[in-house]
Amino acid sequence: MNPDDEFSEFGEQLRRPLDVKLSEFQRNGRLKHLILASQLDSELLERLRRMADMIRHLSRTRQGNLRLKGLLAHRRAMLYFTQPSTRTFLSFMAACQILGVTCNEVRDAATSSESKRESRMDSIRMFSSYFDVIIMRTVIPCFSECCAFLMNRLESASMRSVPIINAGSGADEHPTQALLDMYTILRTFSEDYTQESKPSRFVAQQSGKPVEAGPGHKTYLFCGDLGRGRTVRSLASVLSQYEKVRMFFVSPDNDVLRMERKLLERLRNSGVECEEFHSLDATIDGRPILEEADCLYMTRIQREHNSSVDEQNQSEMNLADFRITPERTSRMRSWAPIMHPFPRDSVTGEIPVSIDADPRAMYFRQARNGMWARAALLVHMFDASEELMEIYSNRQFHQAT
Amino acid sequence: MNPDDEFSEFGEQLRRPLDVKLSEFQRNGRLKHLILASQLDSELLERLRRMADMIRHLSRTRQGNLRLKGLLAHRRAMLYFTQPSTRTFLSFMAACQILGVTCNEVRDAATSSESKRESRMDSIRMFSSYFDVIIMRTVIPCFSECCAFLMNRLESASMRSVPIINAGSGADEHPTQALLDMYTILRTFSEDYTQESKPSRFVAQQSGKPVEAGPGHKTYLFCGDLGRGRTVRSLASVLSQYEKVRMFFVSPDNDVLRMERKLLERLRNSGVECEEFHSLDATIDGRPILEEADCLYMTRIQREHNSSVDEQNQSEMNLADFRITPERTSRMRSWAPIMHPFPRDSVTGEIPVSIDADPRAMYFRQARNGMWARAALLVHMFDASEELMEIYSNRQFHQAT
Amino acid sequence: MNPDDEFSEFGEQLRRPLDVKLSEFQRNGRLKHLILASQLDSELLERLRRMADMIRHLSRTRQGNLRLKGLLAHRRAMLYFTQPSTRTFLSFMAACQILGVTCNEVRDAATSSESKRESRMDSIRMFSSYFDVIIMRTVIPCFSECCAFLMNRLESASMRSVPIINAGSGADEHPTQALLDMYTILRTFSEDYTQESKPSRFVAQQSGKPVEAGPGHKTYLFCGDLGRGRTVRSLASVLSQYEKVRMFFVSPDNDVLRMERKLLERLRNSGVECEEFHSLDATIDGRPILEEADCLYMTRIQREHNSSVDEQNQSEMNLADFRITPERTSRMRSWAPIMHPFPRDSVTGEIPVSIDADPRAMYFRQARNGMWARAALLVHMFDASEELMEIYSNRQFHQAT
Repeated sequence: MNPDDEFSEFGEQLRRPLDVKLSEFQRNGRLKHLILASQLDSELLERLRRMADMIRHLSRTRQGNLRLKGLLAHRRAMLYFTQPSTRTFLSFMAACQILGVTCNEVRDAATSSESKRESRMDSIRMFSSYFDVIIMRTVIPCFSECCAFLMNRLESASMRSVPIINAGSGADEHPTQALLDMYTILRTFSEDYTQESKPSRFVAQQSGKPVEAGPGHKTYLFCGDLGRGRTVRSLASVLSQYEKVRMFFVSPDNDVLRMERKLLERLRNSGVECEEFHSLDATIDGRPILEEADCLYMTRIQREHNSSVDEQNQSEMNLADFRITPERTSRMRSWAPIMHPFPRDSVTGEIPVSIDADPRAMYFRQARNGMWARAALLVHMFDASEELMEIYSNRQFHQAT
Repeated sequence: MNPDDEFSEFGEQLRRPLDVKLSEFQRNGRLKHLILASQLDSELLERLRRMADMIRHLSRTRQGNLRLKGLLAHRRAMLYFTQPSTRTFLSFMAACQILGVTCNEVRDAATSSESKRESRMDSIRMFSSYFDVIIMRTVIPCFSECCAFLMNRLESASMRSVPIINAGSGADEHPTQALLDMYTILRTFSEDYTQESKPSRFVAQQSGKPVEAGPGHKTYLFCGDLGRGRTVRSLASVLSQYEKVRMFFVSPDNDVLRMERKLLERLRNSGVECEEFHSLDATIDGRPILEEADCLYMTRIQREHNSSVDEQNQSEMNLADFRITPERTSRMRSWAPIMHPFPRDSVTGEIPVSIDADPRAMYFRQARNGMWARAALLVHMFDASEELMEIYSNRQFHQAT
Repeated sequence: MNPDDEFSEFGEQLRRPLDVKLSEFQRNGRLKHLILASQLDSELLERLRRMADMIRHLSRTRQGNLRLKGLLAHRRAMLYFTQPSTRTFLSFMAACQILGVTCNEVRDAATSSESKRESRMDSIRMFSSYFDVIIMRTVIPCFSECCAFLMNRLESASMRSVPIINAGSGADEHPTQALLDMYTILRTFSEDYTQESKPSRFVAQQSGKPVEAGPGHKTYLFCGDLGRGRTVRSLASVLSQYEKVRMFFVSPDNDVLRMERKLLERLRNSGVECEEFHSLDATIDGRPILEEADCLYMTRIQREHNSSVDEQNQSEMNLADFRITPERTSRMRSWAPIMHPFPRDSVTGEIPVSIDADPRAMYFRQARNGMWARAALLVHMFDASEELMEIYSNRQFHQAT
């Protein structure tokens, strides 16, 4: 059975307009499944940010940690990661563990019953028999979406059904990466942090120069492998909902690596001002783009997806145009965070380790943010937000007395 | 060292009569090890059913779940699965997690110390040093039995010893599959379920036609790969202890796939009325066997065990005779559950997905039953039945007030 | 990037004198990282022994276990084992689980982001983002030491930093094996065990012949693959700090398998009396060495490290000279424990199973000791010793009333 046949029963559902589908992935304003980055609207992002901040604060004390660990201690998760991933996998594991969720994993489809010709949908339904949420990462683009449809269908028939979380599917969607990127951006450009809880060490440097709060009214510079990086695609889509956003896309002038035409068009239709460049040293209206950026988002050339033609092309490119250097960062705005979805390529060196000590280097904290943001997502999806707030309020009360 | 040499020290013990061995696997009427399906007598099955039902009920509430998770929170399990398995493995994981048992796994003998020429028995003794129960699945037929003998020997010498649970060994034994199948059958044909807790949606349909309670006085139809399916062998053996049981065995007329002669003889000696057929459309005394069955147990052709001769033979068979179809189910009794140990073969299609919506389709609930039944087994073996009952009684009390 | 380049930034730090480095791996008399066996001084070993004994005692009751499981329930560990290991891995898992530490694992570097050319140090920093301790086993000799330097550097920069535990690195260091071996030796030659808690069944046999308490004033006989066994190297180094220690090294007369010249010299400089032999039947001053030994430490020939020349050489050796037999143990002192780091080689048979029933056979208890000793190490490193003592004292109080 080829995948197309396998998912053919969902073909019609898949082809419906986006807004129809979105409404099926939520219930009473709460996410039922997280499949597409488009589900992350600004209101939800703000709610998740507040919860992630609470979890982060609670985790600073032993008592807080133990309270958190009781929050979802009655839940069991399946991490179904047939596409290799260490970072996203461990980040979800840690997020589950913070909340007491028991974790299970299947990482190699070959060792699973699929080698006995079990259909993928039977595997998913088996997981849903034993566990309370399925977090899945796969190379098959629409797989997690079909799983969500299957769960909805079971629910309609009054049968057991569990939430699906897309932890990366195909080349297109990686909504929880967009979530953690947005959490990092919201924290960076937020105003409501006290000195004690300031999100990053460079906030102080901003004080002289008032930066507009929130993700709007900003210039985002994306650099690297923009054609194949689902993180950039997902993040750019989510950012497009904010006001007065400008995006600079810096990549080799190459069909594989540059931003996809269709997505560019969609962003422009949403009101985003988009510009493309082929070097970090490029200028716009005579000013260096690096000096214009409020946020720099670097990415790795994903060589594992290269064809032999791609290899040939890239060997002839000057990748130095897509690396940051101390000289380049010296020209960047003092408040502009340097982000990267990681892993970075230690050979190409798009971000050399000499940058790590820069106060704007945000990529390690960004990774840790992923853990808090994913924990917040689980709290939200399991409808434990109120209980989290209660624990958090009690903590403050106890500290005050 | 070849396996025969390795287990030679247990040769004499292995060759003793069954009843002598059975008595060594229990203590004071409680299972010490679960190695053979023959250990599952009707009284024990009934006790495990009641416990599994309690666990199932308690798991419906957060509070109940948290109480369950404390029940065996002081125990650690080793899941030693050198034979690939997803379903049984995950089902045991979930069962452990429900009760708070911490899980550890070794799934690839090659990565273990056996590659350093450690003997299997040294590996087992290592596991027993660190963990409190060993749940094992292996292709070596007598391995788990020898492990139970080793543990008993250590116990006699006042040394550390832990329970062994056979989660599938060789072609012969899969006692916990028989346990979950029996749990499903006991629930299906039980009378003491209130409306609130009815085991399946088709019980209501039975109301018109009084079905005798319990597994006795029934006709079981087994279909598919009966020669190599250890689940059918184990279940048929266990069912043979009930009164007036009739079994129909439907398989290709082929030495590899049909029921083993020796087992058939043993069943008949136990008083079971056995009949063999070579198509689901066969008749007995002029009546279609499908219309006579109170329970249909389908199985998958286990192609992974095929020789090239088997492949050749099967390519010439008409496997359509061993598939159910909507037409065939339409002729079945309204109360007859359709069971399958899963995974099902999505290519051969012995149960097409179009059957899944049939209220008699029991196979997904059967899988979930495996989790409850295995949890009950752990409670029983760790002697926590009384504490479970206490938790359960308190729950009812609290609900009543 | 080759490993040398990768660690080049730490080259200078690595080359500093041992005592300078040791001081960086501790803080206020407590281990910050455990990298080198030299960190295990006699005072620390005694503290860890007492804690391990407390944990062992508490684990005998359900209540004690549950209290222990709360001790570090707010902590998450990463077990980063890129060198295959079952025993050390499972022992650390069990140690973590006893204390409620949540475990995560990466066991195959190939599936991790290193395949995307992530540097090893970026991987480590990712782990430190998500988890609270990194327990690592690797074939790269200085890797764990460099990780400790990295963590110290981050700490200096007020960034997140976690403890590193070396669970075996290269051919050189295996400090936690030395720890468990020392725990076993300290228990064996300790005087403060009551009848109830006597460490081994052969203590009673010692009563006639007064053995000096403690590891000093003893003769240790090491036998087998002494050239490549990091366990022997680590243990011998640690033992050298005690008074009047004599060591007999019995190995084939072969550059690969005999004790390293440099280490021998270092031991002699520490005041240890060292002698080399080439058979367990050798004599010293006319007396068989076996009759002189207070402790026999057997090891396995590590064939997996053999070159083809080694294979050839060993096929011509008489390995019978390096196996114990009932005849040989019959000549040993009644109080001399027989130790082995395990796994033992079931083909070479350096310890045949017929010895297992000997009351001096300590190797299985030694393995279980590893679990208690590693749990004590975690309590110590996470600064929970006082809380452990409090739990332990309460236990005694409750038992007394």
